[in-house]
Amino acid sequence: MLVVKVGGGRGTDLEPLLGDLKGYKDYILVHGGSQEANDLSEKLGKPPRMVTSPSGYTSRATDRETLSILSMAYAGKINVGIVERMQKLGINAVGLAGVDGRVLEGKRKDAITIFENGKRKVLRDDYTGKIEKVNVRLLKLLLDGGFVPVLTLPGISYESDAINFDADRAAAAVASAMGASAFVILSNVPGLLRDVTDPSSLIGSIDKNSIDQYMDFAEGRMKKKVLGAKEAVDGGVPLVVIAGANVEKPVTSALDGKGTVIK
Amino acid sequence: MLVVKVGGGRGTDLEPLLGDLKGYKDYILVHGGSQEANDLSEKLGKPPRMVTSPSGYTSRATDRETLSILSMAYAGKINVGIVERMQKLGINAVGLAGVDGRVLEGKRKDAITIFENGKRKVLRDDYTGKIEKVNVRLLKLLLDGGFVPVLTLPGISYESDAINFDADRAAAAVASAMGASAFVILSNVPGLLRDVTDPSSLIGSIDKNSIDQYMDFAEGRMKKKVLGAKEAVDGGVPLVVIAGANVEKPVTSALDGKGTVIK
Repeated sequence: MLVVKVGGGRGTDLEPLLGDLKGYKDYILVHGGSQEANDLSEKLGKPPRMVTSPSGYTSRATDRETLSILSMAYAGKINVGIVERMQKLGINAVGLAGVDGRVLEGKRKDAITIFENGKRKVLRDDYTGKIEKVNVRLLKLLLDGGFVPVLTLPGISYESDAINFDADRAAAAVASAMGASAFVILSNVPGLLRDVTDPSSLIGSIDKNSIDQYMDFAEGRMKKKVLGAKEAVDGGVPLVVIAGANVEKPVTSALDGKGTVIK
Repeated sequence: MLVVKVGGGRGTDLEPLLGDLKGYKDYILVHGGSQEANDLSEKLGKPPRMVTSPSGYTSRATDRETLSILSMAYAGKINVGIVERMQKLGINAVGLAGVDGRVLEGKRKDAITIFENGKRKVLRDDYTGKIEKVNVRLLKLLLDGGFVPVLTLPGISYESDAINFDADRAAAAVASAMGASAFVILSNVPGLLRDVTDPSSLIGSIDKNSIDQYMDFAEGRMKKKVLGAKEAVDGGVPLVVIAGANVEKPVTSALDGKGTVIK
């Protein structure tokens, strides 16, 4: 069983990935969609508000209106589009948002601490959370039935509020809960770089016991990928690869060791 | 097994329905969302274009951009919102668009004939179709697993293009394919009226063999509901009720005969 996460940043080409997945069985795809969500937010006159936590992690401030926009972009436009393309390739995909059958459940943080203009602030009425509980029974039901689950935002809180979550870390939770043999995190960058401006500075492998030392190399969105990788490794996933989506057969290539391999 | 369709017109209150459904097991909910889709279309600067067929049926001209807006409104915003509310009520709902596992499949009509400004025209590159094939296996898998399927747009064509479809008729196809014992069609009107301006002119019952004679009373969106009712009856569903959603316990009330009963 394999879990693949693909990012939704600008310049992430899904076609090589979906073509590659045709050759696999028994996997779950988790996808992002930040760029599409940003575009939709702008068009609807509600520009995204990105906030930074005191420990340097970036996330999206998510009031109820933003959550609705995220649902439209991730669960509506992107998820349906990916399922359509997979169906066209003969892959019997079933798209699910985390609310569906409580497949991705976690604790809502209704107040988040942010660091803005040099000041620490508390943001209230936020609909964000961390996925802690995965409905393995539903995912196995679909997989055993020959369907490929394609998972996305929003998740569901223990109180049944729809919540925004980080998709890299949610995918790590899925990989751990499903007892995946490998977890592949794909995006528009080739892996963790020592120097973010130099693609040749790729860190080829990381021993799982020393992953914390590498956290400092991660900038921006890569931080959560490394954190997700760490969480999956801690959750018992024997192989995690952070790799590029825009290459031929990106999953096969990642499993062959092209990217940042954590084990 | 019961199939309930609820409309998405302005003024349709979902709360009584969802509360009522708490008391039921073994059912499928199919929902519309035309009003939400219209609002989103307007906001995105792509106002809806409603067209009328030569036989007087109204539908939405659906180019690829419109299809994407429909996906956002129906599968993203409304479906996720309904699933969230059902989860809050303790109903383990799973939302699916018709593309998911090809659950609602049909023939795409890429050219539709319309009647506009007194002239017959052909509209090309349209993504509309009629649902003819229901993935009963997927729906049973979920139902047997204790989940309630909540179905919506878009469906999928035999060539795997996402398609817009009429939700009343799609729900009729679901009720027929699942061998439902009853099919309830709820909206913001109390049933089929002899005089659309007079709620007291409700037609209480229609013999299934004479349904064609009643088609003339149906105007606007009601036309497709009566057509859906006819298709479900023809598909072997023993009881179909067209009823109002904005009453206490709308499903129970409809099954008790309040509305237009077709059997």
